[in-house]
Amino acid sequence: MEFTESASQEKASGLFARFWLRLKALPDKLNAKVVEAAGKTIKLGRDDPRRIIHSIKVGLALTFVSIFYYYRPLYDNFGVSAMWAVMTVVVVFEFSVGATLGKGLNRGLATLVAGALGVGAHHLASLSGEIGEPILLGIFVFLQAAISTFIRFFPKIKARYDYGMLIFILTFSLISVSGFRDDEILKLAHKRLSTVIIGGSACLIISILVCPVWAGEDLHNLIAANMEKLGNFLEGFGNEYFKTSEDGESKDEKSFMKEYKSILSSKSSEESLANFARWEPGHGRFQFRHPWQKYLQIGTLNRQCAYRIDALNGYLNTEIQASSEIRNKIEEVCKEMSLESGKALKALALAIKTMSQPSSADPHIENSKSSAKKLNSLLKSGLWEDTDLLAVIPVATVASLLIDVVNCTERIAESVYELASAAKFKSVDATVSPDKSELGQRENAKPKDVVAHVVITVSDESTPGASENGNSSNTAAGRHNL
Amino acid sequence: MEFTESASQEKASGLFARFWLRLKALPDKLNAKVVEAAGKTIKLGRDDPRRIIHSIKVGLALTFVSIFYYYRPLYDNFGVSAMWAVMTVVVVFEFSVGATLGKGLNRGLATLVAGALGVGAHHLASLSGEIGEPILLGIFVFLQAAISTFIRFFPKIKARYDYGMLIFILTFSLISVSGFRDDEILKLAHKRLSTVIIGGSACLIISILVCPVWAGEDLHNLIAANMEKLGNFLEGFGNEYFKTSEDGESKDEKSFMKEYKSILSSKSSEESLANFARWEPGHGRFQFRHPWQKYLQIGTLNRQCAYRIDALNGYLNTEIQASSEIRNKIEEVCKEMSLESGKALKALALAIKTMSQPSSADPHIENSKSSAKKLNSLLKSGLWEDTDLLAVIPVATVASLLIDVVNCTERIAESVYELASAAKFKSVDATVSPDKSELGQRENAKPKDVVAHVVITVSDESTPGASENGNSSNTAAGRHNL
Repeated sequence: MEFTESASQEKASGLFARFWLRLKALPDKLNAKVVEAAGKTIKLGRDDPRRIIHSIKVGLALTFVSIFYYYRPLYDNFGVSAMWAVMTVVVVFEFSVGATLGKGLNRGLATLVAGALGVGAHHLASLSGEIGEPILLGIFVFLQAAISTFIRFFPKIKARYDYGMLIFILTFSLISVSGFRDDEILKLAHKRLSTVIIGGSACLIISILVCPVWAGEDLHNLIAANMEKLGNFLEGFGNEYFKTSEDGESKDEKSFMKEYKSILSSKSSEESLANFARWEPGHGRFQFRHPWQKYLQIGTLNRQCAYRIDALNGYLNTEIQASSEIRNKIEEVCKEMSLESGKALKALALAIKTMSQPSSADPHIENSKSSAKKLNSLLKSGLWEDTDLLAVIPVATVASLLIDVVNCTERIAESVYELASAAKFKSVDATVSPDKSELGQRENAKPKDVVAHVVITVSDESTPGASENGNSSNTAAGRHNL
Repeated sequence: MEFTESASQEKASGLFARFWLRLKALPDKLNAKVVEAAGKTIKLGRDDPRRIIHSIKVGLALTFVSIFYYYRPLYDNFGVSAMWAVMTVVVVFEFSVGATLGKGLNRGLATLVAGALGVGAHHLASLSGEIGEPILLGIFVFLQAAISTFIRFFPKIKARYDYGMLIFILTFSLISVSGFRDDEILKLAHKRLSTVIIGGSACLIISILVCPVWAGEDLHNLIAANMEKLGNFLEGFGNEYFKTSEDGESKDEKSFMKEYKSILSSKSSEESLANFARWEPGHGRFQFRHPWQKYLQIGTLNRQCAYRIDALNGYLNTEIQASSEIRNKIEEVCKEMSLESGKALKALALAIKTMSQPSSADPHIENSKSSAKKLNSLLKSGLWEDTDLLAVIPVATVASLLIDVVNCTERIAESVYELASAAKFKSVDATVSPDKSELGQRENAKPKDVVAHVVITVSDESTPGASENGNSSNTAAGRHNL
């Protein structure tokens, strides 16, 4: 009995001691958490300072509309409906102008159409007597909710009008079921629409006038930045791969060799930016009907190139098993292919950034293609016969992937040319390189003799607008499907 | 003069004729459009009949709540606030139970917290006199809107609590600025909360009781289906690639060889399903804290395998340049590697589907590994010395990619084993294959001697929970980084 007691006492004091230790450690832990959170917050703001500006803009718009709502004279005019203005601001104000405009237009139009239909439905139901009315109203609400909900599943509707459909269901239900008399309903609909317009225009004005964030510009920059990342990798790849392991330094430390990874999963963000951009009016260097679809095409090609680069990257991290003798044989040519296609991609990225004709990339593309030709003849020569095939495979695969990359680069260049003509990029001025005329015929030259073999994966990614531009992309693919 | 007149007459009649032709063609065009739209609608419904059921469910919930709102006795209780119930249903009712629950909880909690804070802010402001009140209120609204908007940029918050933050901003602004007296506000907050709860529970009850759609189950099935698609490709690849071109039939007609493409961009849908699944209670075969994160890990590995397969697919569409002599040499081994890893993936997919231990995949993995060994020794043998290296490259690349795929398959198998133990999959019953005991030691066998070279790209995809499971994945990678 005593034994148990002391044991339990000991246990209790042990528990207490542990609890005490935890309690003492708590402030430190809390401190560490706070420091961590603060660090994350600062990083978030520093990564894209527009986030801070956007937060301030939302605060401004909301405060402005709230004051509208607060002051009696306005309050008497709008009544409870005025809260719709607050609601509109909170829900509609998005990061980019395009998203805000899209949501605002969706909301305004849906309110208008659903309001009209709702009034009609309400009127129709009220004709059918006291018993029939709720039944008919129930049927109306059920039918429109079910049909509209189903329509939201269409991918095109979902991408662009999802919010509008939601507001349509909402407004129709609210108005048709409201139980007011017809004239009251008209007043309600009128009030609701005017408050939505007030809220929406407050959002739009602040969104456009105070440091606007244009989705189109973001898309433009994203595509150019992604292309530059690919270029950076390729420029660095040759040296990294052919660096002898005695150089010491670990191979996967360079951060610019990892940057391309973000491109692998960039599809959805590119598509939503393109959807937003369609709503935006002309701004800065972009016209109203800027060919945003072309950017998506280039984005798809970028991604295809990134898949190849991901495979290449795999060979950087492997312990090299190919003998240095073999690697030396193709080192120069592979380095040049990689470097030149990297330079070409960076030139193309620069052309997009500056919105000028991408002709400065042509010489690099020519060089990379002639290197591929060289590699071709090198492989054909008997140089290799006495080597162990097992040791050749990694190097051969890298060479083959580089040839793929050269082809990808060429297709990207073609797409950028298409974009440049569709968006009327300014042509470069007098500093024409001497061999310009020859390079001008790039488009006609058949690449058949250049590459050892060509791997073109015709993308199944459902690029919106692929059907619109079916012809051009088909011919481009056809030209390469040797 | 006459000439001009007749010309203009002719022109007018030409215009008219063209217009008439167009008008006559209009019904046909309209008809075609309607038929097309109907076809799309039927396809949308047939692809996933749950969409139709979901639409009906939304209609039901909305009709139910509308009747609540319509009848006088209830109307008198809730007043205008009752429309919050309608609004809640429209906004909260999502396709899957998890999404609905997540939104509902977000909305309920945010309304509660923001309501309390709003009442506090309103009270505080009302203490500061008639001039100070609007100023103080404006500052409150501005600060909370700006801070909450900024918080929404945190990726983790955005993924799970974005809607809650929105409702927080909305409710706080509405309540703090409403201009009512304190007791009125309490009544308002109470009403709003109760209507939100009524609307939310109507959604939840209908969502869970009428043909529920579980995001968790969808994720489970998606991962298994993706794995099966990879398996299908690999099972078919050997025959397709080594088919001689005289066989006639075009190579890219088989639809199951294209199915894998959807996996390349499946990341975002997998992540959102996993986010929804976390909200779901236990259902059917899934416990409440089912290891959904493991599914994301497997999904990432699936995608890595799909990248390799995308590269392999490129070699299917190329006109074959390798001489048939060379291809014959490795045909058998490559076919077996491809077939066996395909079978392994399909066995793993089946194990996930049936939630049983994936041991039936082990023999196939062993076979694929021993084929890789065979390929290795085949490549080492002098068989190749008199061949043109240029002709070898495509075949060598395919072989190398297949070796990568074998490794990917093994890593996927390990992840599935991890999932099976974490989710306590049922072990397979008495039908043990005779060589089971040997295969049981699979885990201990060092694969060092098996593969020619290994390419493991350590994924940079920010798998949520990667930090939580850092240990296990590190060791898995370590084991393969020969």
